[in-house]
Amino acid sequence: MIYELFYWPTIQGRGEFIRLALVEADAKYIDVARLSENKKTGVTAMIKILENGSKEHPPFAPPILKYGNRLISQTANILMFLGEKHRLSPTSEKGRMWTHTIQLTINDFLVEVHDVHHPLAKSFYYEEQKEEAIRRASNFRSERLPKFLGYMEKILSRDSSSEKYLVGKRTTYADLSLFQIIEGLRYAFPILMSEKQKNYPNVTALHNRISNRTRIDKYLNSSQRIAFNQHGIFRYYKELDL
Amino acid sequence: MIYELFYWPTIQGRGEFIRLALVEADAKYIDVARLSENKKTGVTAMIKILENGSKEHPPFAPPILKYGNRLISQTANILMFLGEKHRLSPTSEKGRMWTHTIQLTINDFLVEVHDVHHPLAKSFYYEEQKEEAIRRASNFRSERLPKFLGYMEKILSRDSSSEKYLVGKRTTYADLSLFQIIEGLRYAFPILMSEKQKNYPNVTALHNRISNRTRIDKYLNSSQRIAFNQHGIFRYYKELDL
Repeated sequence: MIYELFYWPTIQGRGEFIRLALVEADAKYIDVARLSENKKTGVTAMIKILENGSKEHPPFAPPILKYGNRLISQTANILMFLGEKHRLSPTSEKGRMWTHTIQLTINDFLVEVHDVHHPLAKSFYYEEQKEEAIRRASNFRSERLPKFLGYMEKILSRDSSSEKYLVGKRTTYADLSLFQIIEGLRYAFPILMSEKQKNYPNVTALHNRISNRTRIDKYLNSSQRIAFNQHGIFRYYKELDL
Repeated sequence: MIYELFYWPTIQGRGEFIRLALVEADAKYIDVARLSENKKTGVTAMIKILENGSKEHPPFAPPILKYGNRLISQTANILMFLGEKHRLSPTSEKGRMWTHTIQLTINDFLVEVHDVHHPLAKSFYYEEQKEEAIRRASNFRSERLPKFLGYMEKILSRDSSSEKYLVGKRTTYADLSLFQIIEGLRYAFPILMSEKQKNYPNVTALHNRISNRTRIDKYLNSSQRIAFNQHGIFRYYKELDL
């Protein structure tokens, strides 16, 4: 069965966390909204799924994953589903729940990253909340980012082996998601990250290792990987970086 | 085995979602940080758990649930665990995942509710971000609240029976959480809610039904239920309501 991913076609956004898991799993999928407009593909098809995709399990927002008759929404939920199916999480219930716990913390942080540039509302332009964004960014840089990355570093540091993973002894979707967070932070806060990342050596090492994984490396260098841009969750504004 | 809940002692906050599930399940628990300071109780004990509670599964933030040797964190995760153990979610994997999906959406909304009064940073006083809060509140009232409540209403409306639940034919933790959201919104936005709630008759009916459940009713009228106050997630500021 081929997965169908429904997500906005021009940004990495939350969809990218799903794409990375699908790529690492070597799972076949179509990126529905990125295909040309047709009955079953394109943005219109995504909007249709969003509005009427399932009477049983109506989705609130993309990303949405379709697998046969099943429609799954909420990023962390989709990853939990894929993790179990494709060995991107441990086999034990306890281990799976712990992987999910880390993912939920990553998701919370992602909201904070977005709200740095849009502290008042998604529907206001950046220019309408630029001064507020500058104030929020200052707190983000000094408190929130160190707290989050410090937590991830703490998790990784417990592992005494040289190849550390967030969970157990192999790659999980949580590692892929942390990789993506680091990618995004480097795009949005280049100066800050070049200064701070030495404080998180294990996080940095994990990021390197993930980016060198065969399928991930190939994907990152393909046209399938949408470039970061000023419409996604991670955005670069000089005045928010330091 | 008795559960131990670790959460801030003077607010409902995220801990309340766990408390409601424990109450409805008739599960024995101690509310650790609300007991007097002792080796194993009080706020100090909570801070200790937070900092050093588990080398295996270090928590990021409260609420934290301890069950024997197991330490579980992240609200939605704890509820998923309790739901399975105490029949507060369906028995099928599909049904459990759908309940969790709704809970994740509720959790996302909760962050938005909090950020209405603290759009720039948790660590700034309200007075330092009051003007920004007013701008954010306006968008929250006109767009975000209707979007969220409309979605919950849509889920409930699919059920043709007179006693509607978010999932299946009985109470799940998602129903308890939606109840708590309505409680909080009525406290924080009394005028707005008295105007808007007629648009969401099934949500309102569900709230009523949950509040009349025997154990929940008893709990709500006991000293165990902390009153809403200006330190929690839901706060009342006249200028943010309309």
